[in-house]
Amino acid sequence: MGCQELDSLQNYIREIGTRSKLASREMMGASLLARNRSLVSISSEILKFKSKILEANNYDLSKSKNLSSSMIDRLTLNASGIESLAAAVLSVSSLPDPIGNIEGMRQQPSGIKVGKMRVPIGVVGMIYEARPSVTADVAALTIKSGNAALLKGGVEAAETNSVLMEAILTGINQVGLIPCDCVQLVDPTDRKIVEKLIQADTFVDLLIPRGGKSLIKLVLEKATMPVLKHLDGVCHVFVDKSADLKKALAISMNAKTQRLGTCNTMETLLVSTEIASKFIPLILSQLERVGIEIRACSETSKLYPNSILATEEDWYEEYLGPVLSVRIVKDADDAISHITKYGSNHTDSIVSEDYSTISKFIRQVDSSSVIVNASTRFADGFEYGLGAEIGISTDKFHARGPVGLEGLTSAKWIVFGNGEVRK
Amino acid sequence: MGCQELDSLQNYIREIGTRSKLASREMMGASLLARNRSLVSISSEILKFKSKILEANNYDLSKSKNLSSSMIDRLTLNASGIESLAAAVLSVSSLPDPIGNIEGMRQQPSGIKVGKMRVPIGVVGMIYEARPSVTADVAALTIKSGNAALLKGGVEAAETNSVLMEAILTGINQVGLIPCDCVQLVDPTDRKIVEKLIQADTFVDLLIPRGGKSLIKLVLEKATMPVLKHLDGVCHVFVDKSADLKKALAISMNAKTQRLGTCNTMETLLVSTEIASKFIPLILSQLERVGIEIRACSETSKLYPNSILATEEDWYEEYLGPVLSVRIVKDADDAISHITKYGSNHTDSIVSEDYSTISKFIRQVDSSSVIVNASTRFADGFEYGLGAEIGISTDKFHARGPVGLEGLTSAKWIVFGNGEVRK
Repeated sequence: MGCQELDSLQNYIREIGTRSKLASREMMGASLLARNRSLVSISSEILKFKSKILEANNYDLSKSKNLSSSMIDRLTLNASGIESLAAAVLSVSSLPDPIGNIEGMRQQPSGIKVGKMRVPIGVVGMIYEARPSVTADVAALTIKSGNAALLKGGVEAAETNSVLMEAILTGINQVGLIPCDCVQLVDPTDRKIVEKLIQADTFVDLLIPRGGKSLIKLVLEKATMPVLKHLDGVCHVFVDKSADLKKALAISMNAKTQRLGTCNTMETLLVSTEIASKFIPLILSQLERVGIEIRACSETSKLYPNSILATEEDWYEEYLGPVLSVRIVKDADDAISHITKYGSNHTDSIVSEDYSTISKFIRQVDSSSVIVNASTRFADGFEYGLGAEIGISTDKFHARGPVGLEGLTSAKWIVFGNGEVRK
Repeated sequence: MGCQELDSLQNYIREIGTRSKLASREMMGASLLARNRSLVSISSEILKFKSKILEANNYDLSKSKNLSSSMIDRLTLNASGIESLAAAVLSVSSLPDPIGNIEGMRQQPSGIKVGKMRVPIGVVGMIYEARPSVTADVAALTIKSGNAALLKGGVEAAETNSVLMEAILTGINQVGLIPCDCVQLVDPTDRKIVEKLIQADTFVDLLIPRGGKSLIKLVLEKATMPVLKHLDGVCHVFVDKSADLKKALAISMNAKTQRLGTCNTMETLLVSTEIASKFIPLILSQLERVGIEIRACSETSKLYPNSILATEEDWYEEYLGPVLSVRIVKDADDAISHITKYGSNHTDSIVSEDYSTISKFIRQVDSSSVIVNASTRFADGFEYGLGAEIGISTDKFHARGPVGLEGLTSAKWIVFGNGEVRK
């Protein structure tokens, strides 16, 4: 690629970035009514555009040749999918306003009153693949939270995203209360655009990459603005000696098999040695019956010979598929040490009926979600009652775990005085 | 510097970093009693070490040759300074526990109960200059918040810091309930150590640089972990046409002159044109009387000829000294535009009696503190009732504005179930 082309990419980013920044300033002052009415209008336009969206999606699917079946699955949008999309946008309009609230306003000894106001972040940059539903979801969440969005979808979904954006813009313009630049698609055809976008910190205030590990790694290395992301989901279920084995069985099965490819799926099962001889054959035979391959520690393989011996690498692995590593541990301390060493600070569950063991697990496991007697699959914005989810963060800063509308806001201090000066 | 020396620096960082990380794991489980008793003990040891600290401080002062007078001012620790230091550590012990609380625990439709628990961050790295009081302050705040600290003070305060650390360690060891590695000094003699420290993201979870702009810029360019910082404090006071001029006068004088060199000191005064002819001569003559040099816009200089004409650069400038830029603006919108263009998103005040103008200013000024009818000097952790301050953040993420103990914590989601699985 020549310098000229790079220059023109830079100009392109500068142009859409400047428009986005201006729109974000306007959005900061947009009333709740203006934002909600726009969302309602977008939702109904998505329904009106249904056949056009289906047509575009068929086109995208027809031209995709080398895509994996899971990619095709995520790319496909059918009529009922479009209806849920419209419903999701509508439901965001009925969520409480995430901005404007002033919390904790308290009088100080000097006489000033101090509180914290929730405010939009500015411009949110989103990089994602396949799944065109993200386009509508993120547009809705950024509008609701008073931000502007730059959406860089995958080239494989270009036509679908472009028609979806047409529906979104029609919805915005029909109400005419928020700037149409508050949501913009970034041209996905040039692969170099990602590298430019993740360094455009003059325009993009927060970057949310959603996609494969290579994308996240690129972003971690080169992004110059704050990033909301999760890298790995090596989630554990620890079955304590005091566990109710019926619960343990149901939770382990659900955590591994309800969906195989999600980040909150269990990848390693830890079983207390005291109950291993009873629980291991029970759970592993059930898992095997539904096609899960077992990579076991040597203790486990003695109890369940129909398993492959796990290597050191297995404990670090996020299989995202029909494979599970299983290890017998001495006790809760041993389980916590394993999770601390091999885990990814995403989501870890304990199954136990013992108060002190549960307390210790909660305090010492340093993950974004620590779950007691329930499936790891619950780590999700909707299940947590956030009303929406923009992603899951395994960072400790700004937002951690499932991130809803609040993760798209910041806070500023508001001080009300009556002529006070500092002494 | 040869490769060998760099290698040994790397080894040194790895050694103290590993010890810090281990200590932070222990601190995560340290009870409130253990943390508070250690703080009480540190406080009394600082008093016992008073003469040794004074001696060390005299030594540091005697060997400092090329230091500016403000640097010497910050480096100096006298008997009453040491007493306030001990008192500050003691007062941190009486603050509420910033970790362990589980907030917003709510039952979800699935039956699970979900809440958010405040947890320590891990290892906090602090880089600072001169002011040895930071050593005790930050040690107290990190212990209280269940973190570990790596403190890199200035070489000019090496002896004072080293004796202070002796007092801190004695205090910790006498109680014996928290690991002595929870606070460690980083050897300040090698200047290359800063560059190593700010890239040691395996060990340091949060970096807080406090010092000149060259340090902050180095950190912004090269740090590989999250950073809590503020770059500039170009703070404004806007006197609206509806302002109570008595309040306006008191607030402007205080904001500029109560302390000249702090980040929340006013650097630019904006005055509504409607009241300019009345207010400008009043405030500027008072300011001049106490030695403040005025850099004025052309309109202002007509009303107050005894001023220098401001250049475009003046509006961006953080003088940190006896200079003030003054501009007459059309109205609140004009003031907000000026602040948006030239400000640093730190702290900005409006003096006004008009409800709508105040509402607009609060909503549209995108600063970490927006102040109504009070001095910008109030932007401070103690004045805001945080009980302590570790710094001021002009970022929108994690913590914004004055940062107290809460800024040294993160949150994790806690889920209580009773065998629930995801459907």
